[in-house]
Amino acid sequence: AMEVIWWGRERRKLSSRELFVLTYGALVAQLCKDYEKDEDVNTFLDRMGYGIGVRLIDDFLARSAVKKCRSYSETADMIAQVAFKMYLGVTPSVSCSNTAGNEFSLILDKNPLVDFVEELPAERASLCYCNLLCGVIRGALEMVHLAAEVTFLQDRLKGDAVTEIGITFLRKAEDRKHKRNK
Amino acid sequence: AMEVIWWGRERRKLSSRELFVLTYGALVAQLCKDYEKDEDVNTFLDRMGYGIGVRLIDDFLARSAVKKCRSYSETADMIAQVAFKMYLGVTPSVSCSNTAGNEFSLILDKNPLVDFVEELPAERASLCYCNLLCGVIRGALEMVHLAAEVTFLQDRLKGDAVTEIGITFLRKAEDRKHKRNK
Repeated sequence: AMEVIWWGRERRKLSSRELFVLTYGALVAQLCKDYEKDEDVNTFLDRMGYGIGVRLIDDFLARSAVKKCRSYSETADMIAQVAFKMYLGVTPSVSCSNTAGNEFSLILDKNPLVDFVEELPAERASLCYCNLLCGVIRGALEMVHLAAEVTFLQDRLKGDAVTEIGITFLRKAEDRKHKRNK
Repeated sequence: AMEVIWWGRERRKLSSRELFVLTYGALVAQLCKDYEKDEDVNTFLDRMGYGIGVRLIDDFLARSAVKKCRSYSETADMIAQVAFKMYLGVTPSVSCSNTAGNEFSLILDKNPLVDFVEELPAERASLCYCNLLCGVIRGALEMVHLAAEVTFLQDRLKGDAVTEIGITFLRKAEDRKHKRNK
């Protein structure tokens, strides 16, 4: 039985965010025991995140009192500067990665969801440990009528220099379906 | 695709506990999509809870500064009056249910983990929605060298009058193994 190594015994009080991170770690560890393929773990986390995102958007809108975003760029900034700050306590930097202006990268120097993770086992090379985040973003965007694909492009857990989440806004529902079925 | 019905759209700020309850709901809903058998969902939640419990005990001991419990009865009271209060904000009542003094019931009038659950679908009659709690208790007890079996005996989600968690302390590791393999 393989397990993600993510905790040393230390008797101290945890913040509510740390309790969440601990719970998340137990979830990923249990998924890794139940699912042989990394891809299946990633899919589970993405779909579960989607289920959170479609509900979390109401909390986000109530807390942030933001008005409608008028561009993809404004939306990406909102996710990074307001939503990430609010729920994870970090602010990723945002860059647009194509000339069409619908692809964005969120770069995280620090990812609080992995605070207790020491390393991913070698046999879990394709695991996207934080894939829940992608689903949350996707679900929340869908509730404000924005279809998007959200994936991890880089991950410090895998030895990359930074953690990078890619968001591609899809202009039409058909585009999305087409891309999905490829 | 069947889904636990547990949320009406309402734009309001959620407390951190409500965010946890929302996340937990998304987890159970996704497990119900992936696992056909209720028993497999229950097992997943119990095992994941175990993974939380074996780590949460350190946070609990750091927060509560409790001393060693000298009896099963004291331990059951501690779980109900200190641990449940601390993490879930409710205090179950405790009763000992056998003359040997090793079986206890925690009775919850209110279960905050199901705050947003409206109903369980008829085809999920064997689902123990909150089975994570059983695993958490079992894991935490094991870390203080107490083997126990923890199960839901009654559940308001299933129409019972109260929610009841049964804790049976097992005197020896062998007893437990024996019971498990039956």
